[in-house]
Amino acid sequence: MNDVRIALIHYPVLGKDGKIVSSAVTNLDIHDIARTARSYGIKKYYVVTNLPAQQAVVRAVLDYWVEGSGKEYNISRTEALQLVELKSYLEDVIDTIKQETGKKPLLFFTSAKKRPRSISYEEGARIIRETDRPVLILFGTSWGMPQEILDMCDYVLEPVRANSDYNHLSVRAAAAIIIDRLIGEEV
Amino acid sequence: MNDVRIALIHYPVLGKDGKIVSSAVTNLDIHDIARTARSYGIKKYYVVTNLPAQQAVVRAVLDYWVEGSGKEYNISRTEALQLVELKSYLEDVIDTIKQETGKKPLLFFTSAKKRPRSISYEEGARIIRETDRPVLILFGTSWGMPQEILDMCDYVLEPVRANSDYNHLSVRAAAAIIIDRLIGEEV
Repeated sequence: MNDVRIALIHYPVLGKDGKIVSSAVTNLDIHDIARTARSYGIKKYYVVTNLPAQQAVVRAVLDYWVEGSGKEYNISRTEALQLVELKSYLEDVIDTIKQETGKKPLLFFTSAKKRPRSISYEEGARIIRETDRPVLILFGTSWGMPQEILDMCDYVLEPVRANSDYNHLSVRAAAAIIIDRLIGEEV
Repeated sequence: MNDVRIALIHYPVLGKDGKIVSSAVTNLDIHDIARTARSYGIKKYYVVTNLPAQQAVVRAVLDYWVEGSGKEYNISRTEALQLVELKSYLEDVIDTIKQETGKKPLLFFTSAKKRPRSISYEEGARIIRETDRPVLILFGTSWGMPQEILDMCDYVLEPVRANSDYNHLSVRAAAAIIIDRLIGEEV
């Protein structure tokens, strides 16, 4: 499979009132999305937060499960959490991928809102199969990612359940569904 | 869409050592899977646990979000959690569905392990579209559901990512992917 990576963005994201905020890290976002990433052959899972106290939460989870005694309790958690890398800003993620691969990643934006020029999952899956560049899929926390991140992206994926009268999936569920739609059973 | 319901089983399930246990309820299992259920037009989400202390956890979540002040904070959570019904045993779920619909539900078993005679998601989706019976999809917590539940089921779905070298999805992620594969964008 191609070099596909994901990032979970805690800053900048939108708050309930539409202003830019830095959201809190959730322990299960780290675990669940790492397990999904590992199950689908994703190469790296970047947890992006600029707040030192929130970075400490991520480090505590990784220290326990990757370096510490979590390994003895459940080795499959360790294996998943080894994919996690803490970054302060999205720009740092992009720089790291450029350094590691020599190529600028193709950025995919995800959202629960309909946006102009969004592409279908079939189209997204085709792009991922055919590109020779690394792929970075972005997931927002809180009330989603702002325009300034949208402007950095190459593609916008259509919302999951766009025609439902309700589409308030958790980011853990949305990430799982989106990754499954883009990668499926490909190994 | 057809009458599709889901149940999250906490007893009987397998423990790490393969013995039958009653697992602990996780707050985010209630929230995440309820939000997924509501997004996909699922009619009821049964949380099945036989332990009084665990039933109290479920009741506390529902009291706050369905009856209490959670509604003022985030109405979309209330709307999702209104789908949740607490039951002591799977047999109670089946009886309730029979009483409400006059029909025995078709039971779907899910698992991370390959099983004999499992069906594809395409086949599962077709059965759900075409049946005139209510459908109940079962998800196990802990190390999965035991043989005695498998024996009660009409169909076994193949594992998600069966050919991956790792398929330890969280039940929250697995439920999201399986429901998406069976229902997709149908409204």
